[in-house]
Amino acid sequence: MNFAIIGCGLIGQKRAKAVRDSGHSVHIVADTLNDRAQRLAAQCHGSSFSTDWCKAVSAPEVDAVVVATTNQWLAPVTIAAVRAGKHVMVEKPAARTVKEIDEVISVASKGAVHVRVGFNLRYHPAIQKARDLIDSGALGPLLFIRGRYGHGGRVGYEKEWRSNPEISGGGELIDQGVHLIDLARWFLGEFTQVEGHATTYFWEMPVDDNAFLSLRTATGQTAWLQVSCTEWKNLFSIEIYGRDGKLDIQGLGGSYGVERLAFYRMLPQMGPPETTIWEYPGEDRSWQSEMLDFEQIVQIRKSYGSGLVDARAALLVVESIYRQSLQ
Amino acid sequence: MNFAIIGCGLIGQKRAKAVRDSGHSVHIVADTLNDRAQRLAAQCHGSSFSTDWCKAVSAPEVDAVVVATTNQWLAPVTIAAVRAGKHVMVEKPAARTVKEIDEVISVASKGAVHVRVGFNLRYHPAIQKARDLIDSGALGPLLFIRGRYGHGGRVGYEKEWRSNPEISGGGELIDQGVHLIDLARWFLGEFTQVEGHATTYFWEMPVDDNAFLSLRTATGQTAWLQVSCTEWKNLFSIEIYGRDGKLDIQGLGGSYGVERLAFYRMLPQMGPPETTIWEYPGEDRSWQSEMLDFEQIVQIRKSYGSGLVDARAALLVVESIYRQSLQ
Amino acid sequence: MNFAIIGCGLIGQKRAKAVRDSGHSVHIVADTLNDRAQRLAAQCHGSSFSTDWCKAVSAPEVDAVVVATTNQWLAPVTIAAVRAGKHVMVEKPAARTVKEIDEVISVASKGAVHVRVGFNLRYHPAIQKARDLIDSGALGPLLFIRGRYGHGGRVGYEKEWRSNPEISGGGELIDQGVHLIDLARWFLGEFTQVEGHATTYFWEMPVDDNAFLSLRTATGQTAWLQVSCTEWKNLFSIEIYGRDGKLDIQGLGGSYGVERLAFYRMLPQMGPPETTIWEYPGEDRSWQSEMLDFEQIVQIRKSYGSGLVDARAALLVVESIYRQSLQ
Amino acid sequence: MNFAIIGCGLIGQKRAKAVRDSGHSVHIVADTLNDRAQRLAAQCHGSSFSTDWCKAVSAPEVDAVVVATTNQWLAPVTIAAVRAGKHVMVEKPAARTVKEIDEVISVASKGAVHVRVGFNLRYHPAIQKARDLIDSGALGPLLFIRGRYGHGGRVGYEKEWRSNPEISGGGELIDQGVHLIDLARWFLGEFTQVEGHATTYFWEMPVDDNAFLSLRTATGQTAWLQVSCTEWKNLFSIEIYGRDGKLDIQGLGGSYGVERLAFYRMLPQMGPPETTIWEYPGEDRSWQSEMLDFEQIVQIRKSYGSGLVDARAALLVVESIYRQSLQ
Repeated sequence: MNFAIIGCGLIGQKRAKAVRDSGHSVHIVADTLNDRAQRLAAQCHGSSFSTDWCKAVSAPEVDAVVVATTNQWLAPVTIAAVRAGKHVMVEKPAARTVKEIDEVISVASKGAVHVRVGFNLRYHPAIQKARDLIDSGALGPLLFIRGRYGHGGRVGYEKEWRSNPEISGGGELIDQGVHLIDLARWFLGEFTQVEGHATTYFWEMPVDDNAFLSLRTATGQTAWLQVSCTEWKNLFSIEIYGRDGKLDIQGLGGSYGVERLAFYRMLPQMGPPETTIWEYPGEDRSWQSEMLDFEQIVQIRKSYGSGLVDARAALLVVESIYRQSLQ
Repeated sequence: MNFAIIGCGLIGQKRAKAVRDSGHSVHIVADTLNDRAQRLAAQCHGSSFSTDWCKAVSAPEVDAVVVATTNQWLAPVTIAAVRAGKHVMVEKPAARTVKEIDEVISVASKGAVHVRVGFNLRYHPAIQKARDLIDSGALGPLLFIRGRYGHGGRVGYEKEWRSNPEISGGGELIDQGVHLIDLARWFLGEFTQVEGHATTYFWEMPVDDNAFLSLRTATGQTAWLQVSCTEWKNLFSIEIYGRDGKLDIQGLGGSYGVERLAFYRMLPQMGPPETTIWEYPGEDRSWQSEMLDFEQIVQIRKSYGSGLVDARAALLVVESIYRQSLQ
Repeated sequence: MNFAIIGCGLIGQKRAKAVRDSGHSVHIVADTLNDRAQRLAAQCHGSSFSTDWCKAVSAPEVDAVVVATTNQWLAPVTIAAVRAGKHVMVEKPAARTVKEIDEVISVASKGAVHVRVGFNLRYHPAIQKARDLIDSGALGPLLFIRGRYGHGGRVGYEKEWRSNPEISGGGELIDQGVHLIDLARWFLGEFTQVEGHATTYFWEMPVDDNAFLSLRTATGQTAWLQVSCTEWKNLFSIEIYGRDGKLDIQGLGGSYGVERLAFYRMLPQMGPPETTIWEYPGEDRSWQSEMLDFEQIVQIRKSYGSGLVDARAALLVVESIYRQSLQ
Repeated sequence: MNFAIIGCGLIGQKRAKAVRDSGHSVHIVADTLNDRAQRLAAQCHGSSFSTDWCKAVSAPEVDAVVVATTNQWLAPVTIAAVRAGKHVMVEKPAARTVKEIDEVISVASKGAVHVRVGFNLRYHPAIQKARDLIDSGALGPLLFIRGRYGHGGRVGYEKEWRSNPEISGGGELIDQGVHLIDLARWFLGEFTQVEGHATTYFWEMPVDDNAFLSLRTATGQTAWLQVSCTEWKNLFSIEIYGRDGKLDIQGLGGSYGVERLAFYRMLPQMGPPETTIWEYPGEDRSWQSEMLDFEQIVQIRKSYGSGLVDARAALLVVESIYRQSLQ
């Protein structure tokens, strides 16, 4: 397939690499900064570059569009791409609001193309292994989940685009929070009760730097989630409890520490559980895995992927928490 | 000082040992089970034993009473001891309800004796070191706290006294939960907002086996706490965030893992923090430290210790969560 | 089977418990200290006690003898037991010298009973799992082994029986060293080259407190072993390298840390290995496993077990190192 | 100062960066591969490049030369630079043999310039902290050291220059081994007894891929060292034992794991030691620290640095082990 990459920042570069690693080609890249577009095109054999994303998404040679812009452009670019008949891989959170994503869903539902949302954490090996173990019944029925995710920002973080609500749609909750919400919902199912608060403790910016979420399914399973960009020691942790055991996922590589999954299996006599741990010290291949999955979905022509629905569910939680935090 | 020990179970035995290790003597021990009282007395040189706690608390030779009974007797025994003019060390939660503890406070406020509540976790070395670091200003103003505490029960746990609300006053929340509430309040101050829910996921018993708490101070600092007796891998973790760093306390020894405190100090350039870790592999001496502290308080004759007030604050949170969980 | 336990110290007590846990009975226990014998007998339903080990090993009701004395009595008691027609489980090192064990072997070779040597580390779950992985070919041909084992002694250690060469036959090398030698040989096979030195760095005693061993098989595989009783942080570590991967065994429970086995499997592309870790947080069941194995060997009446040969091989290394250390 | 960088591979690039980070400038870079020299010059503002190292080391603007070539050129380039009146920072092992380094020492002893050898591990923060603790007397007199260092190679490793003895002078022992030898000698002092063997277990190459070293000082302290390029899980570990405690250094960052130093301090009552751990999660700054140290030495014009003597001591051990391995 031929791809257009819209947005040539860090994530756009990762996506472009994943496109090429998966045997596809990048036809054109676009960015508001001409230099940045040019540099990425130089790395993608045969790719042109442009500062005009409209042109890029509608180029006849393009089969699929990667939308890796800042948040305010995610929805408009996706809509334009769908209207141009292109498959789309759009970065999370896919839109700034439920209202925005509902427009995307509405347009996408009429097209014959696939729109996937880039929740790449689903493709991390520890999380995929966790999913497999849960699906195999090894944990028994799930009881609850705890999730913690955060980083410590960097000097000047409060002046970056993520701190501008016009651009980002929100702070830490819409940035890293949607990942945890998406994973928790992937494991537990729909949440019928949403409680929590988002707050700004440290960074002098008009968006939240910490959020606390208590999400419950209809049967009362709790997802107890916290995200932070005052997490001075980078952290990713998901703990999943079932009647018969616990899964403990830690790390995402790099500054988050080695990715690992521990499976604590309860024994009939209870006491210390049987313990098996898998570590994944290799480089982060989640972007490639996600791209291969994208390709499969496109090839088998399922008329409409579930990605936007997932992103909508996450945004619904985000908005509810933001609303409660205003009280 | 001469002590009476009321309740000769696991905790009563630990307290009796701490009394002797601190150079005091056990004058009498009492338990409803005669055998158990006799066995403990045999280990305490010069101690008699009885099945009549009333007699024990009022013996003229007794200076101070340790109340280590099941929860329903904590308040009545304490009240009787205070009325008999004895100092009291009563196990957490000190009472089953706010109403009960208010009676204790009322009686105690009229006496000239000291009543302390056995929140022994405050005396663990990692927690004391954390307290010292916070008091020294090393963390700067505190932002929020996360706490996780739990164990996995054991075969038949649902039939033990803790599962009987008449005896215990509640489940996991009133058992291990009060420790986390007390510590969070010790670090952050009074909570003005209490949200959360207690629930029963696994054990077939009429009390909670999991509780989720979101407590906030008047200035918005959050204590984000979770306790569980479906914690298949025993766990104790408190993470304390300040503007200038993070403290990470893990483990309590034994099946909870080696006790340790990590101090992540932020540097001006941000990025990876300066990291120092203290480990405490030795045996649990918190009971001895608490006893020495008790002695000091008694000696200097402060007219009324703060212990009951702390216990009341914890019970207030417990009751609020239970009330919200009924909705 | 009916057992006699000779030597009622810590190890004798563990062995007695393992005998009972395995469904056998303790007929008689013997110790030079009458009190200690009496206390152990009290814990073993139906057991008598004695200060006369000769009487104990020759009692007609006794089928098998556990020899858990200090080292100078291991060989004489074993010989007497074999002559009395009893099966024997003798503690490592089974004798103080090669000369002593050769007498045991000579006597045992003429009898119809089984003599096993208590190298209980072979029965630890991480080591058994390692053995299984190696036997399955998962590591490919073995290259070399590193082993480290040690403890930090305790106040007065230099005055205990282990420091008296008449009683012990040597220091740290004959105490913990024989375990490492036995395990290395179990994994790699016979050693044809023995180099190293034993030395006394810290404890004021006429035996070694540290030993360094470089053992090589005929094909040049190296066992690189170090044992110490100045190991201030208790340590057990065995690392096994094969052409296709590495096994890393750590911990024995308790103060040695949680027992665990990590399997690093090399991938065709090399780089970070595939990593799987098993942890064994439960209590030490090696004594029971060893006893069940002992029973099996006895039941199937193999005329002469391999235990003494293994112990002799370890003592041969010990003596060679001691000889080299005198130069 | 103005530097010439001879050898523009990975290490030459690191050294060039350290030169610039320390406020100095790179005047010229040289490499046999013109492209590689050009690429590095492009990163060093104001630097020219050349394929002629003779020209580079004798350029009048050059004050100091970094020699980061493959091993066979280390000595000749250093000698030429000294003769041209330049200070020199030469990569470890500084020469392939004692004979070669003796020539360097002979030439250097006549000049007025400084020759330092790049044992950059001495500048890692955990190792510097260890040095400080030892110098402060916190460990008491040292008893022995254990060191393990290794990596797992990579596909084609047996065809790289390190596998060619003409170029490298040896295998793993002369590559990573000299680091361990240098550090052990830095901590313990001169070794008067050298035993061990180097061997080739895995890689099909005419040099060693594993070496085992037992080095002893005149007072009998042992450095028990092992290096490997069949270390499937990258490893760096140095354990230092004193009468009063132990230091445990692990990791060097990146694939070697987070760098950390644990200090186990013995208490009078013995048992579990007091434990403090420092972690160094930041980027590797050892190259910058070493450069700053180099500058200091040059500025204060000590006539002849100790670097070559240290490198000679390491090569003496290397040759002794190689000689013993031929037997």
